[in-house]
Amino acid sequence: MKKNYLFTPGPTMVPAEVSLAEALPMIHHRTPQFSQIFYEVSEDLKYLFQTKTGEVFTLMSSGTGAMEACVANVLARGQKALVVISGKFGERWAELCTCFGIETITIDVENGKAVNPSDIEAVLKKTPGIKVVFTTQSETSTGVVHDIKAISPIVKKYGALMVVDCISAIGVHPLMMDEWAIDVAITGSQKGCMMPPGLAFACVNSTAWDVIEKADLPRYYWDFRKMRKDLKDKTTPFTPAVSLVMAMKTALDMLKKEGIENVWKRHARLAHATREGAKALGLELFAGEYSSNVLTAIKAPKGIDVDKIIKKLRDETGVTFTGGQDELKGKIIRIGHMGYVNDFDMLIAIAALEKGLYEAGYPVQLGEGLATVQSILVGKK
Amino acid sequence: MKKNYLFTPGPTMVPAEVSLAEALPMIHHRTPQFSQIFYEVSEDLKYLFQTKTGEVFTLMSSGTGAMEACVANVLARGQKALVVISGKFGERWAELCTCFGIETITIDVENGKAVNPSDIEAVLKKTPGIKVVFTTQSETSTGVVHDIKAISPIVKKYGALMVVDCISAIGVHPLMMDEWAIDVAITGSQKGCMMPPGLAFACVNSTAWDVIEKADLPRYYWDFRKMRKDLKDKTTPFTPAVSLVMAMKTALDMLKKEGIENVWKRHARLAHATREGAKALGLELFAGEYSSNVLTAIKAPKGIDVDKIIKKLRDETGVTFTGGQDELKGKIIRIGHMGYVNDFDMLIAIAALEKGLYEAGYPVQLGEGLATVQSILVGKK
Repeated sequence: MKKNYLFTPGPTMVPAEVSLAEALPMIHHRTPQFSQIFYEVSEDLKYLFQTKTGEVFTLMSSGTGAMEACVANVLARGQKALVVISGKFGERWAELCTCFGIETITIDVENGKAVNPSDIEAVLKKTPGIKVVFTTQSETSTGVVHDIKAISPIVKKYGALMVVDCISAIGVHPLMMDEWAIDVAITGSQKGCMMPPGLAFACVNSTAWDVIEKADLPRYYWDFRKMRKDLKDKTTPFTPAVSLVMAMKTALDMLKKEGIENVWKRHARLAHATREGAKALGLELFAGEYSSNVLTAIKAPKGIDVDKIIKKLRDETGVTFTGGQDELKGKIIRIGHMGYVNDFDMLIAIAALEKGLYEAGYPVQLGEGLATVQSILVGKK
Repeated sequence: MKKNYLFTPGPTMVPAEVSLAEALPMIHHRTPQFSQIFYEVSEDLKYLFQTKTGEVFTLMSSGTGAMEACVANVLARGQKALVVISGKFGERWAELCTCFGIETITIDVENGKAVNPSDIEAVLKKTPGIKVVFTTQSETSTGVVHDIKAISPIVKKYGALMVVDCISAIGVHPLMMDEWAIDVAITGSQKGCMMPPGLAFACVNSTAWDVIEKADLPRYYWDFRKMRKDLKDKTTPFTPAVSLVMAMKTALDMLKKEGIENVWKRHARLAHATREGAKALGLELFAGEYSSNVLTAIKAPKGIDVDKIIKKLRDETGVTFTGGQDELKGKIIRIGHMGYVNDFDMLIAIAALEKGLYEAGYPVQLGEGLATVQSILVGKK
């Protein structure tokens, strides 16, 4: 009886309630019936981003589409942007900026480390004219979380726009759009939102609007101005993914019911337990003190083929972890704990990890990781 | 007992089999399990586009996203394009081209008429340097179908690329990608494919590739080159909408089982019956001889508020038609008959139309439209 357990960096597991809402009879999108749902989703998303004054747009795309939308909406030809790169998703900001002809300055952070906010200040100080700073809250390629709260005031001090990829962070780590003065933040449906992939969301504050109005990169499908205009009429410029929006309503209802502070706390507990469970097995964390609550990246033990373990677990037990990408291939195992996950799920994850390592010949005392996770989750609430 | 009947220009009705496939447990997209499904979908889509040599890319976007992808992939800065405009969706090609800085020449066709292919030839003859011709197979804003088969050889004769918006036409009207030498054709999931919205598909032939390689507009999310590279590995550059792709597999299985020629014939029969049913009620077709099999656009009878009828039917009976957009507002009723529709559905549509007109005070003999539709559908197969 193989069941599917996704401990991946997204898509994550989807509650049956959400999947079934996705399967409800189709309705036309230009109707008051759909508009009401779309309006409620757009309002509830403000809660997720912790904003009262910002607006949240729903994009029919993956998270990368929302990243492209940010670049296309906040920059003008020939302008300068700063990108903080600490992995694959930071790199993506830089690739997008370069693709759109933006003069792109980068800060390259060592894999597995978070950026030091003072490094950002140093670049802003010595390089006048940087209009936008692109950062990543949770870099899923390395399992690192960046201190967005500390970075934002520095960026604002130098008059630049603060744009954050929160794709995997929203609904996992606190993201205080208003309190931290974030200008643009984006997320995707298939992470903390407990949804299938296919939708992305962009939260835009009033400071960003002046910039967006003056931006001049070509934008049509991604044009926030069109989205803003239509959102006032509770609709979208182009056909929305109706079934996903209906599912999103259910997912947001579940998150609201739990309460966003409790959602954050749950992720912190599960992440802590997973990290300690891994350590109890003698494993080392790749991101150390910078480890996010989104996923735990574990260094491959010497002589152990972790990609083989991952493949075997996935095909034989249905438990899906992911390995490293690009230069991290074969060097890490990534265990996701975001979205629709609870205590028992993390016991399954650690049990699978023990099994995989044991069968690969790594010296593991079966049950040791499990006992640690159980102690943390049951022992201290 | 109100049920929902969508006779709209999309989203269209979705079979329960497809909706339930959408609700299947989530799987990770970077796995052989998903790759197999994605590969089968990509192969089956070739059948839908009637191509053996072209490739079909799956985009996470609405149909407009696929339109933007076409513009961004086949043109270089400062190049010239010709756009045939016969309604809202032709206009969209022109808006996109203009947005991306393309010198855009348009042929403006009267609403409710199809373009005369010789008008395209005349423009191509007198305007050297047109690189791409953008057309629309089915213009849903007016209910017109264009003769793509006749247009394509003209465009090829002048060495331009033939790009067709087949968003609402695929799975309704024949579209012979190879036989007609179409270079790029696009569609969306929520039309003839009997799917929820959220996916779009672009079919690209080998002639287009030379152009795509030389194109230089900024493209990242829409980059066909990335999609082509990853399709060889049965995957996508960015996270695919897993649940929609799984549903698409089921939808394509249903279409293959019926057989594409039978699917086209079914639409032709249902469209013919609907047109005759409307005429039997004394109504006039907006698109006359150019009427598509996608939807029937009917002129509003004098003194009758058709938008009020549409609203009342939708809210009271669950039957959803659509009215005209922009300058056609209040002037037409549009009755869709694409996708998951059968004989009985069209009886419901015509019954609702009779009811709506009758209650609005239009002199209709109840049952006359129904009798006509029934005679056509039962009488002559």
